[in-house]
Amino acid sequence: MKLLIVGGVAGGASAATRARRLSEAAEIILFERGPDVSFANCGLPYHVGGVISDRDKLLVTTPERLRERFRLDVRTRNSVEAIDRQRKVVRVTDHATGNTYEESYDKLILAPGAAPIRPPLPGIDLPGVETLRNLQDVDRIKAAVDRGIQQVVVVGAGFIGLELVENFVHRGVATTVVELSDQILPPLDKEIVTPLRMLLEERGVTLHLGDSAIAVESVPEGLKVYLKSGLILMAQLVILGVGVRPENQLAVDAGLEIGPRGGIRVTDQMQTTDPDIYAVGDAVEIRDAVTGVPTQVPLAGPANRQGRIAADQIFGRDTRYRGTQGTAILGLFGKTVAMTGQSEKSLRRANRPFRKVYIHPAHHAGYYPGAEGMTLKLLFDPDTGQILGAQGVGGAGVDKRIDLLAMAIQARMTVEDLEEAELSYAPQYGSAKDPINMLGFVAGGLRRGDHPQIDLEDALAQSYASGLLLIDVRTAAEFGQGHLPGAVNIPVDELRDRLAELSRDRDLAVYCQVGQRGYLATRILLQSGYRVRNIGGGYRTYLLWRDSQ
Amino acid sequence: MKLLIVGGVAGGASAATRARRLSEAAEIILFERGPDVSFANCGLPYHVGGVISDRDKLLVTTPERLRERFRLDVRTRNSVEAIDRQRKVVRVTDHATGNTYEESYDKLILAPGAAPIRPPLPGIDLPGVETLRNLQDVDRIKAAVDRGIQQVVVVGAGFIGLELVENFVHRGVATTVVELSDQILPPLDKEIVTPLRMLLEERGVTLHLGDSAIAVESVPEGLKVYLKSGLILMAQLVILGVGVRPENQLAVDAGLEIGPRGGIRVTDQMQTTDPDIYAVGDAVEIRDAVTGVPTQVPLAGPANRQGRIAADQIFGRDTRYRGTQGTAILGLFGKTVAMTGQSEKSLRRANRPFRKVYIHPAHHAGYYPGAEGMTLKLLFDPDTGQILGAQGVGGAGVDKRIDLLAMAIQARMTVEDLEEAELSYAPQYGSAKDPINMLGFVAGGLRRGDHPQIDLEDALAQSYASGLLLIDVRTAAEFGQGHLPGAVNIPVDELRDRLAELSRDRDLAVYCQVGQRGYLATRILLQSGYRVRNIGGGYRTYLLWRDSQ
Repeated sequence: MKLLIVGGVAGGASAATRARRLSEAAEIILFERGPDVSFANCGLPYHVGGVISDRDKLLVTTPERLRERFRLDVRTRNSVEAIDRQRKVVRVTDHATGNTYEESYDKLILAPGAAPIRPPLPGIDLPGVETLRNLQDVDRIKAAVDRGIQQVVVVGAGFIGLELVENFVHRGVATTVVELSDQILPPLDKEIVTPLRMLLEERGVTLHLGDSAIAVESVPEGLKVYLKSGLILMAQLVILGVGVRPENQLAVDAGLEIGPRGGIRVTDQMQTTDPDIYAVGDAVEIRDAVTGVPTQVPLAGPANRQGRIAADQIFGRDTRYRGTQGTAILGLFGKTVAMTGQSEKSLRRANRPFRKVYIHPAHHAGYYPGAEGMTLKLLFDPDTGQILGAQGVGGAGVDKRIDLLAMAIQARMTVEDLEEAELSYAPQYGSAKDPINMLGFVAGGLRRGDHPQIDLEDALAQSYASGLLLIDVRTAAEFGQGHLPGAVNIPVDELRDRLAELSRDRDLAVYCQVGQRGYLATRILLQSGYRVRNIGGGYRTYLLWRDSQ
Repeated sequence: MKLLIVGGVAGGASAATRARRLSEAAEIILFERGPDVSFANCGLPYHVGGVISDRDKLLVTTPERLRERFRLDVRTRNSVEAIDRQRKVVRVTDHATGNTYEESYDKLILAPGAAPIRPPLPGIDLPGVETLRNLQDVDRIKAAVDRGIQQVVVVGAGFIGLELVENFVHRGVATTVVELSDQILPPLDKEIVTPLRMLLEERGVTLHLGDSAIAVESVPEGLKVYLKSGLILMAQLVILGVGVRPENQLAVDAGLEIGPRGGIRVTDQMQTTDPDIYAVGDAVEIRDAVTGVPTQVPLAGPANRQGRIAADQIFGRDTRYRGTQGTAILGLFGKTVAMTGQSEKSLRRANRPFRKVYIHPAHHAGYYPGAEGMTLKLLFDPDTGQILGAQGVGGAGVDKRIDLLAMAIQARMTVEDLEEAELSYAPQYGSAKDPINMLGFVAGGLRRGDHPQIDLEDALAQSYASGLLLIDVRTAAEFGQGHLPGAVNIPVDELRDRLAELSRDRDLAVYCQVGQRGYLATRILLQSGYRVRNIGGGYRTYLLWRDSQ
């Protein structure tokens, strides 16, 4: 067996080492265009900020280690330029010598990754306009910061862009972010990322949402960035973080099937339309694990798993890729935002029926010092209760809850299963009713009809349009500090005695701070013959929504 | 509907508030023998240490709040003394007045909890010999520490005992622990709790394992504690933390069925053998969620869920209790130990076939500063791959991984499912191959036969008894710092070139530091025709095992 692998980072390196473990006899050649293999992509922004000061720490392994330990024929600075599927050979350029040569294969794995998008704008190729993909990029960016540049413009408020923003702020560089969408982190829902948007602003980052760069110009002071809105920004460094595009040219030229978003089409065994060619990682089209719809999600974990699976198939192990959930996380100035599965906006786009609930719990028992707050949003199928997606934002413990929900999605669990989850409880770690259980209670109550709920947006709209009465069941003091427009105040503890104030002919919506008193008020009113729903997540959800407008 | 509930803490309070949510019309009387309802049991030790300085924070709710908000008839300092099932009445003593009265019921929920065991030893009832169950207990214990006592003896190294130990140490009290078992935290496996045992010793705690108190005597300096070993300990305070016993007297007297371990027998709807009487919480016999075997597990989370379920049944919602996994966690001097599902020792006791794997990962990417180490142990069914139990010990992130495995157990997931888990990855939170994935890889490789493994104990035994050759595949430097008795050193990077040194007639076991190089060495040797297994968890597991002997 002669196995060639194109690309030596996450998916390619995983495939190569897995292949060697499965076969000592195979000839395995790993081609990597750059000088490094298997580096820590996800750590690159933190080298700029000096959080990871030792550059060598970013090298997960080295060509030497792969040669010595795995007897891989590692060829860095070697580009595979073309595939001849009939002859089963690839054409390679060795950048050290400039020579071109052919290499034959029995099986070929493509792991070329995805390239940062460089929109075709005037000035986009000027020095100082950077993307971040590899160690050479990070060296240039870090050198600019080390030189003492004053201003940076980051185009694109995605994960990598914002990680860089944090590190620029740490280094004292005035940072401006330009984002085409009307929110940061477009894969997430807007209200969930709003606390981070506000945090960025608190940290002095200038945000231009709903705007885009249309040109860059070199001037003596550095770079002038022209925005669509007419604004002009000065910077000495411009980062393009507007997304990535699958590196599919090899596959396209070889006539392999490509999906509509540019990803190489593969089976769940990572096989392309040529049975001798596999493809893995950011370059391939994957199936969404929740909806089954083909899509494109560049993530390190899935790339590694796919590399394993391709090697498994080639050496006779029948493992299958189950699809990608899109589990992702971002740390920003000590806060965390994370998601897994579908977002509300992706469900709306797909016209898929769903319901949502919000909770605002502490990450551990409130009576133990140091409890940090978070907001969790759960999306589920109203008919089956299946969990479709989740998002969280806050302090400590967000990663744990989103990972638990990622696990629940993988296991096709329902919201009722969350009610029964038995998680570890001591006051430093959680609560006797963990946030995961609480999500289950709220969503389960909705499904059973015991706890009818109305989404905040609908409550506000119906309050204006069709006379829905909003009742704030918090205390008068809480009400006085701020409430929903048009709401009346009847504290839950007085509600039973004040039912006479409410007409049974009118639709009611109640709310409290986070949803719990509103739930009790809903139960009281329902049982007294009112048409009533609780506004999910209460006033805290309203504040998120209001701040995101 | 007239509903009586006996016991107002976790299970009883949950049942009462749930019942009110389901029925505004029901008459609900909550009897609580003590002065408080719904206090934070799990926080009590931290009030002693001053970590939770405000005593009121331990009151999750108050009788007044329950009356006002939930219209419950809360009767604290009222003991239910007897049940007359024929007449459907209970006899109650009001301790404020000393009066006895009867109260009738349509449905009755028993939530009496479990009482700390006070073994019948001479001096066990002396002042200063305390158990910890409620706020009155904690007041006395804290008062003793505030008085400036010098020495405390804690009998029993279970969860509550050790939480108290930490708090005594914080307060500067010389602390001695006496534990009948040969390890601390007997529900866990010995090697897993060994790092905590060593940590206790580092913090100056004196441990007497495999010993027990046989008498306490009052002397002018305080209390003399006589141990079975002949040792005599001086203290001014003795804590008994030797376990709890279900408070089943009411149920026994009423002729309800009781399990062999004293728990009130209930259906999965929490119904006792009298269809009008339900029981929940620490007093009931539950079913182990993994094995289905009846058992007794006192935990707050399950008690709350059971309370909900009893109320659900009474008011026409058919939810069912799925059994208890025994998910538990302990924080001790900044370290964490946690478990879920079956332990190795419980599987051995039950004669249930299982395999185990160990890994020793960092809690997040090693290239990002601050990564803390942990040890995870996974127990699974070798035939089906079903996860049976897990334990973890270490720094940050242990709670997350054990909770993920608790979720996996609930969902009846297999080790192969763990390989495919898609968890959130940024370098502050995890790794592209999370410890959960790694557990899956190691256990899955074992099941597929690609990665034959031998347990450390078996490898050591067979090395002595039947000539199994132990090969240390770490570097010479690592080998020089310590290795398994009798092992020879062949670094993995030299192994392919030194195969001639090894006979194919002899059984081999390889190991490295944590298992990864050993895995590669196993693959190399297997494919070269050797009979070889990898020692799971490597030298790090050996150190745990050795230190636990």
